[in-house]
Amino acid sequence: MKKIESTKNESVKLWKKLQLRKYREKEGLFIVEGYHLVEEALKYEATVEQLIITDESQIQNLNYDGDIFIVTNEIMEEISQTETPQGIAAVCRKKSESLEISYGESYLLVDKIQDPGNLGTIIRTAEASGINAIFLNKGTVDPFNDKVIRSSQGAIFHMPIITRNLSDVIETCNEVGIKVYGTSLQDASPYKGEDPSDSFALILGNEGEGIENSLLNQTHKNLYIPIKGKSESLNVAVAAGILIYYLKNV
Amino acid sequence: MKKIESTKNESVKLWKKLQLRKYREKEGLFIVEGYHLVEEALKYEATVEQLIITDESQIQNLNYDGDIFIVTNEIMEEISQTETPQGIAAVCRKKSESLEISYGESYLLVDKIQDPGNLGTIIRTAEASGINAIFLNKGTVDPFNDKVIRSSQGAIFHMPIITRNLSDVIETCNEVGIKVYGTSLQDASPYKGEDPSDSFALILGNEGEGIENSLLNQTHKNLYIPIKGKSESLNVAVAAGILIYYLKNV
Repeated sequence: MKKIESTKNESVKLWKKLQLRKYREKEGLFIVEGYHLVEEALKYEATVEQLIITDESQIQNLNYDGDIFIVTNEIMEEISQTETPQGIAAVCRKKSESLEISYGESYLLVDKIQDPGNLGTIIRTAEASGINAIFLNKGTVDPFNDKVIRSSQGAIFHMPIITRNLSDVIETCNEVGIKVYGTSLQDASPYKGEDPSDSFALILGNEGEGIENSLLNQTHKNLYIPIKGKSESLNVAVAAGILIYYLKNV
Repeated sequence: MKKIESTKNESVKLWKKLQLRKYREKEGLFIVEGYHLVEEALKYEATVEQLIITDESQIQNLNYDGDIFIVTNEIMEEISQTETPQGIAAVCRKKSESLEISYGESYLLVDKIQDPGNLGTIIRTAEASGINAIFLNKGTVDPFNDKVIRSSQGAIFHMPIITRNLSDVIETCNEVGIKVYGTSLQDASPYKGEDPSDSFALILGNEGEGIENSLLNQTHKNLYIPIKGKSESLNVAVAAGILIYYLKNV
């Protein structure tokens, strides 16, 4: 256990940098805050490299034998991205995700979703429903953004999340016989016309723009959710929930 | 058209007060911000009492013949609750909602949901799916909170939202033969065991605590959404979407 009292300490500087996507990508690290998320991180195959606490009582029920840093409240506030820091945070290493797409599994493909709350909620729903992996393209909000992690309620630790070119992913799905569904308000079929299936891929698009046309052209079929009222569309995380639970027949 | 240049002006003081639930309830007024929401408000049976703009060009495409105030950017920032005000806002009068519960309609009952984004998203989904009205109890976040209105994407203008004792609402539903479904992780049945129906009521509960036990005891049946992964539950707005779209068979 190591005590840190200066905000100028090198570790503190690194932790602060991890608030930015650029440094999370460079270092392969990210920070989670709060007891519940730290607990979830520890359950998940030792991705936790450092624990940061303000008080030893924080860890008395945690099973962890790596590096522990005791910091001042001032330092915790400095590195925290929440308004009221809980006094515990963990520095986690990103897993290098490699995954072979194979028939029998179900995937979510995320095309440039911007809102961290939406992405986190989608990860939570996907994990809960038994989706096997999520593929994101580069224009999507960083899944290791603190708001995404919080909205995922820790599901980010149980779900392979892979950044990859979505056109390639669709091509591979087509090759191995996995039906790929786009979602679109135009030129699409009502989702309930499709039969649920053991293996499928579903693409979700940007909040304002939807899915890129070139991707929609590669799909087996594009689906829409009927709107009976005056609203123009559904929130993308809600739409994801309706489609996933229907297509997986959960 | 009236120009206001002082932040001490009485109208400005009132508009600022409307940031608080207490004054929204006392005055029966609320404010919406941004072009899209103002447009939605104007489409909806003249609930708009005042338009507030920073520039006349803001209203050239709007059909409105009520009071218009031109204010400084400073005043707009003062009354706005967004980080980058769009230069247009509307003061709207709440409709006095009275509604007779009748067989053939579908309702949503909201028990103490706290997160404005969740409530707004639920209102948007409910409106889109053709739900006829939403009943809230007193412990629920104010539906005229600016974040609720924004997340609803204007659906709040097309959907009767009524604050009422939920136990009374369930009782009336039971009397007229509308099946009332609770949602619960314990002592509940999987939702797909139920047949979709033309007329039902669905209760949604608080993010952490769920639905109050006394309400769960009054229902026809309590439902749960199966979880295949390690997540403990779904986000309440996602759960609402899955259940509503299943039960209404949209």
